[in-house]
Amino acid sequence: MSTPVYNRVALIGLGLIASSMFWAMKRGGLAGEVTGFAKSEASRETARRIGLCDRVCDSAAEAVADADLVVLCVPVGAMGAVAKEIAPHLKAGATVTDVGSVKRDVIEAVGPHLPDGVHFVPAHPLAGTEHSGPESGFAELFDNRWCLLVPVEGSDPEAVAQLRALWEGMGANVDEMDADHHDLVLAVTSHTPHLIAYTMVGVADDLRRVTDSEVIKYSAAGFRDFTRIAASDPTMWRDVFLTNKDATLEILGRFTEELFALQRAIRTGDGEHLHQYFTRTREIRRGIIEAGQDTAAPNFGREAPKA
Amino acid sequence: MSTPVYNRVALIGLGLIASSMFWAMKRGGLAGEVTGFAKSEASRETARRIGLCDRVCDSAAEAVADADLVVLCVPVGAMGAVAKEIAPHLKAGATVTDVGSVKRDVIEAVGPHLPDGVHFVPAHPLAGTEHSGPESGFAELFDNRWCLLVPVEGSDPEAVAQLRALWEGMGANVDEMDADHHDLVLAVTSHTPHLIAYTMVGVADDLRRVTDSEVIKYSAAGFRDFTRIAASDPTMWRDVFLTNKDATLEILGRFTEELFALQRAIRTGDGEHLHQYFTRTREIRRGIIEAGQDTAAPNFGREAPKA
Repeated sequence: MSTPVYNRVALIGLGLIASSMFWAMKRGGLAGEVTGFAKSEASRETARRIGLCDRVCDSAAEAVADADLVVLCVPVGAMGAVAKEIAPHLKAGATVTDVGSVKRDVIEAVGPHLPDGVHFVPAHPLAGTEHSGPESGFAELFDNRWCLLVPVEGSDPEAVAQLRALWEGMGANVDEMDADHHDLVLAVTSHTPHLIAYTMVGVADDLRRVTDSEVIKYSAAGFRDFTRIAASDPTMWRDVFLTNKDATLEILGRFTEELFALQRAIRTGDGEHLHQYFTRTREIRRGIIEAGQDTAAPNFGREAPKA
Repeated sequence: MSTPVYNRVALIGLGLIASSMFWAMKRGGLAGEVTGFAKSEASRETARRIGLCDRVCDSAAEAVADADLVVLCVPVGAMGAVAKEIAPHLKAGATVTDVGSVKRDVIEAVGPHLPDGVHFVPAHPLAGTEHSGPESGFAELFDNRWCLLVPVEGSDPEAVAQLRALWEGMGANVDEMDADHHDLVLAVTSHTPHLIAYTMVGVADDLRRVTDSEVIKYSAAGFRDFTRIAASDPTMWRDVFLTNKDATLEILGRFTEELFALQRAIRTGDGEHLHQYFTRTREIRRGIIEAGQDTAAPNFGREAPKA
């Protein structure tokens, strides 16, 4: 077992990301002791039952006491309140980080509460599934995925380097960028796609002439991928859209503009426009496969369920 | 080996669906001899090299001669011309079917060319990948997927039953519905989702402030699924939108309406509206998993690529 990156780590919030972090830290021997806290008593009980965290605490204050790293794993909209609650109990020299999908808003909500002598290094692992809760985590979630560190002005380089070592130990590739650029990139690659998937699934559900059972039975060709995205945690995503409002609305505007152009091409029968557009988007997919972020295996994700 | 369902089957067009049908028919011993034809000489050469079809012919007329079942596996926009070309060479009593994603347009394009005494049973297997061409097929593509049969007025019940037996032998579940309902259901579950995915990928590609390499690197959370959909064959999808124009435009209209409502909720900060919407869409996903059309495995589709 290698030397731990941190002696004591506290996970505040015990959902998909926190539980995956715990298993990944255990796999890599990256933390001495991991404490955990969840607001819901049911989640704490589940965590204790499945051995999630070395010690599950009944308050956030207790969980962060003496921790070298505190990871805020709550919905973006709850970050500020949690930071305020734990601030008086943080050890001098500790690092506070988070795993929120939005960074500018979290920095503004959390930063002011943290005392001098505590390092703040916001972060965002680009990994997830449509599942949530303490039982949804698994050690491999971050393997070969990106984690973006978003150091704030005056972030201690050593604190940043230590957090980077933790994420690399959990299998992630690490990049750094500033908060505003992060929020724009994520609006393109994650937030707007999620909103669109939610919308399409809602439309299908609303149509009375197409029954629910038909939509569900015949979902294989396209729609199925949307439903997976649209099954993500509602609270987390509500907070993402409310806190990354400007970038999401901007990308949505661009999306609508493009969609209307394609819609007009369909209406006027402009096959050349459609073919050119679809040929261009195909190239982007090739880039993603070459970048190792997906596989081109022909039956990828399509194994037949057991009868 | 069981008794073949058809003594001789001709595949016209040798892309993903035709090649998967060939391997699935071989797996199940469902056809005596399978002939094949592709318009492109390169595709015919590839087919010969990889053993796709028992006999690759240099004309469609030669391929369909003496065939008991002829399967049109060309883009929807090419169906009419192919039907006209093969019509004089069809055996009396043969069945002609297709695998097109749109049914009303194909019925109108193909039906008038077929001579009396030839049965026409349109079909649509709801299965695919983002890959195309003769090398993209695999025997398991249709396992536990739906194939929709869309009999036309006067379709011979025995011809329909025989085609059903073939699809069931290739692993598919079979349903029947009429052409207009098929085209509406598919507009919801497949055609509009594809157009939306194409659009979103195009938007990402257009943005100058977010580089292509960023989009590609950070695609894991949502966008990656869109790029897979948006990598599908451009010619096939151009034809789908041009031939299922009315249903696609109708569903797009509903989609835009819903999207604008969610956009307004974001702009006005109406978190309750967003949360309710996202909770409802999550339920649909559960239905799909219960219907056996996907798996809930926590690391589904997310195996780390080999380093």
